[in-house]
Amino acid sequence: MNAALSPVAHWTRKDLVGIEELSREEIECVFTTAEQFKATLGRTVKKLPSLRGRTIVNLFLEPSTRTRVAFEIAASRLSADVITIAGTSSSIVKGETLRDTALNIQALNADMLVLRHSAAGSANYLAKMINIPVINAGDGAHEHPTQALLDAFTLREKFGRDLKGLKVTILGDILFSRVARSNIWCLQKLGAEVTLAGPATLVPPLFARFGVRISHDLKEALHEADAVMLLRIQHERQTSTHFPSLGEYTSMFGLNRLRATWLKPNAIIMHPGPINRGVEIDSELADSGRSVILEQVTNGIAVRMAVLYLCAAAAPAAPNPTFSTAP
Amino acid sequence: MNAALSPVAHWTRKDLVGIEELSREEIECVFTTAEQFKATLGRTVKKLPSLRGRTIVNLFLEPSTRTRVAFEIAASRLSADVITIAGTSSSIVKGETLRDTALNIQALNADMLVLRHSAAGSANYLAKMINIPVINAGDGAHEHPTQALLDAFTLREKFGRDLKGLKVTILGDILFSRVARSNIWCLQKLGAEVTLAGPATLVPPLFARFGVRISHDLKEALHEADAVMLLRIQHERQTSTHFPSLGEYTSMFGLNRLRATWLKPNAIIMHPGPINRGVEIDSELADSGRSVILEQVTNGIAVRMAVLYLCAAAAPAAPNPTFSTAP
Amino acid sequence: MNAALSPVAHWTRKDLVGIEELSREEIECVFTTAEQFKATLGRTVKKLPSLRGRTIVNLFLEPSTRTRVAFEIAASRLSADVITIAGTSSSIVKGETLRDTALNIQALNADMLVLRHSAAGSANYLAKMINIPVINAGDGAHEHPTQALLDAFTLREKFGRDLKGLKVTILGDILFSRVARSNIWCLQKLGAEVTLAGPATLVPPLFARFGVRISHDLKEALHEADAVMLLRIQHERQTSTHFPSLGEYTSMFGLNRLRATWLKPNAIIMHPGPINRGVEIDSELADSGRSVILEQVTNGIAVRMAVLYLCAAAAPAAPNPTFSTAP
Repeated sequence: MNAALSPVAHWTRKDLVGIEELSREEIECVFTTAEQFKATLGRTVKKLPSLRGRTIVNLFLEPSTRTRVAFEIAASRLSADVITIAGTSSSIVKGETLRDTALNIQALNADMLVLRHSAAGSANYLAKMINIPVINAGDGAHEHPTQALLDAFTLREKFGRDLKGLKVTILGDILFSRVARSNIWCLQKLGAEVTLAGPATLVPPLFARFGVRISHDLKEALHEADAVMLLRIQHERQTSTHFPSLGEYTSMFGLNRLRATWLKPNAIIMHPGPINRGVEIDSELADSGRSVILEQVTNGIAVRMAVLYLCAAAAPAAPNPTFSTAP
Repeated sequence: MNAALSPVAHWTRKDLVGIEELSREEIECVFTTAEQFKATLGRTVKKLPSLRGRTIVNLFLEPSTRTRVAFEIAASRLSADVITIAGTSSSIVKGETLRDTALNIQALNADMLVLRHSAAGSANYLAKMINIPVINAGDGAHEHPTQALLDAFTLREKFGRDLKGLKVTILGDILFSRVARSNIWCLQKLGAEVTLAGPATLVPPLFARFGVRISHDLKEALHEADAVMLLRIQHERQTSTHFPSLGEYTSMFGLNRLRATWLKPNAIIMHPGPINRGVEIDSELADSGRSVILEQVTNGIAVRMAVLYLCAAAAPAAPNPTFSTAP
Repeated sequence: MNAALSPVAHWTRKDLVGIEELSREEIECVFTTAEQFKATLGRTVKKLPSLRGRTIVNLFLEPSTRTRVAFEIAASRLSADVITIAGTSSSIVKGETLRDTALNIQALNADMLVLRHSAAGSANYLAKMINIPVINAGDGAHEHPTQALLDAFTLREKFGRDLKGLKVTILGDILFSRVARSNIWCLQKLGAEVTLAGPATLVPPLFARFGVRISHDLKEALHEADAVMLLRIQHERQTSTHFPSLGEYTSMFGLNRLRATWLKPNAIIMHPGPINRGVEIDSELADSGRSVILEQVTNGIAVRMAVLYLCAAAAPAAPNPTFSTAP
């Protein structure tokens, strides 16, 4: 059967640790692959044999249900076996370095590692350490590459395959957001124009060096946008409060019916979820025809299937180094 | 392969949210299907391909191991992929409405949702909200339909397929018991006669409106019973104590050797588990030939396989609404 | 298809509860089977159909990630379905005896039970109680048979199939270690000579009755060893402190660069993991060519596949007793 996967043109990486290092061609390759997988999601029998017999370990050392479940479903659809190790208190970690944990997972004969970790750079560190593919499912405030890929994939579905000149406003807690960082890289590589908006404390001027426009005037930031990406307030990655209160944030920057009128008629509203109704977005807007929030969720399955597939296909055939030392 | 399941006669529901709304024919349809599945449980290779490629999400927002594991095994036996989301602190829920959680699970391309929730009516609410089947695995003190179905299935195995005139006494914490409520509906629809027994504080006279007999005289309640169903004391759904102590409950209503002599010779003892030996039942009675407690557990697998199968077969073919909006 | 597994010569046990009761032939039978499974681990498609359609319940009532994941991967590779019940607070256990929990798991139509429990003897107790195979994944300070089997399997890979006369020093917290107990039995049955070393409080003279040598002189204990097995300090199984501090343990008995020079040139270093770098072993030694720690991890998959396979093959064909009582 599917003894070995054929490597896919334009994709030679065993890992996906960030968007920053990807070329436009690599990003497009993920989209092309994801389009094929998305076409299978509507079938009754959705399972593909691509990763049959492979074991994917989901190491989620920072709380997450949504991304974990999306990776589990994506892996199942490719017929992989998935083992999830969650929580910060798991004994595989207790008194053990992250490096040792990763070496052990590789030695357990796992074929891929999906990592969610609170430390920026952790996925990159492990990708160099072990021979099996490492997929970054969020590393601190650094990157969340599959989220950016699914966001751009959704934009392509709405606005066509060429995002050149498309105007996207990212609104909210930019400072602590790995979603914002990955999206800035991804959208710019695809030719879109990015505006960052939100309170000055959460949208520092420093970000201008990424080539984005920064705006603290919400009306202006929404006016020309083809899409507005809302972000959650990331309490867990803030060491002190960067704005007076949630209520004050909502009154100043929450997307409500009035502010939505500032948008262009066909502009769409995006959110990585989970949404806080009444905080960063009014309930009726979340459910309106402008919102593509649930389509983002579905596209997350297709995009993650693509990432798992591409990295598995590019990985060396016999990844486990402990075999070579056996007699 | 099994591209689509054939709908089963007498079953057109995509959801199982309660027994109250089922017809006798629908209940019988579950039994007939469960009988076929039970016959497969004794095989070495028990897996059936019926739900191959489908993803079932077990959303257990109230603690449960027993029911969760039973649904996981039932789904595995039908070759479905099962993803369990457990605990009240999962981030899919944090700051998110139950409606949003359900819409997200549907958007994640899941094919069925099994829900355990502390709020009465939650399963019904979600069943109307999403297009994929919703199976109620217990909603507050309201219903626990698969428990009632497996109980009645067990009675049929013991007393024959027609339960008309069979006398069943439900003993214990009726007030807070979803098991009691579902069993009252189920047994009466099948023609059995139900007596509720227990301390007056836990068996309110109000329940007489369900057409059952209420008894606070244990001897009388046991005397004519063909089956006695014991219930656990549901501490977690009581806001204040409804009886002085567990010891007092045991001395007044616990089933012991003496009280078992009040039963008819062929009367059986049932319990949804987990049993509290020495509280609601004496240890030797739980292990006696009268007890069908472990057979109930096994029948729970067959009945849940039947429910999953029937609802999947009745569900619309392409359940995911987010596909229609993609170009 | 694989309707029934063929029993394997020299293996007639449905359970693996300890090494103490195994014959040398039975241990060798595990190794021979594990060798065959290990050869499959390097393949791209590693899944074997041997346990297809069977359900293995991992009941881990004491915290463990490493052993749990190893059993999950081993079971998946044999195409079994695995259901894990973890934590001490699971409601399958609350107010329920261990016997009832096991009887329920059997009644849930599970085919095998893997048990990690804090009570010595718990696996043996359940093995007699239920008809399905019970695999001991660690019972208190009693036995951890699969760890000893993977350790000996690793020694055979390094030193050849006959371990007769091989000198193995087990160093550390012998008193509270189930790994030490299982290894003492296993190594002696295979003809190896075992020395126990460590602080007097953790290596009581009583252990001499097992036929091992006891040494509190680390230099002497390391000098002649072909392999040194380090153990973790088992805080969780100590009721009071048996040595002044971790720092003092390290300074007296930690394996460091100087002490490693006392070893023979080709002596190897083993550890069941997770390792505490800088406590029982220096970081550079853990990563040195002498260390076979990661090979032990990989061998743990092969050995556990063998144990699951052998016990399944020796189990009675229709294990579930509740079927016989159904009409």
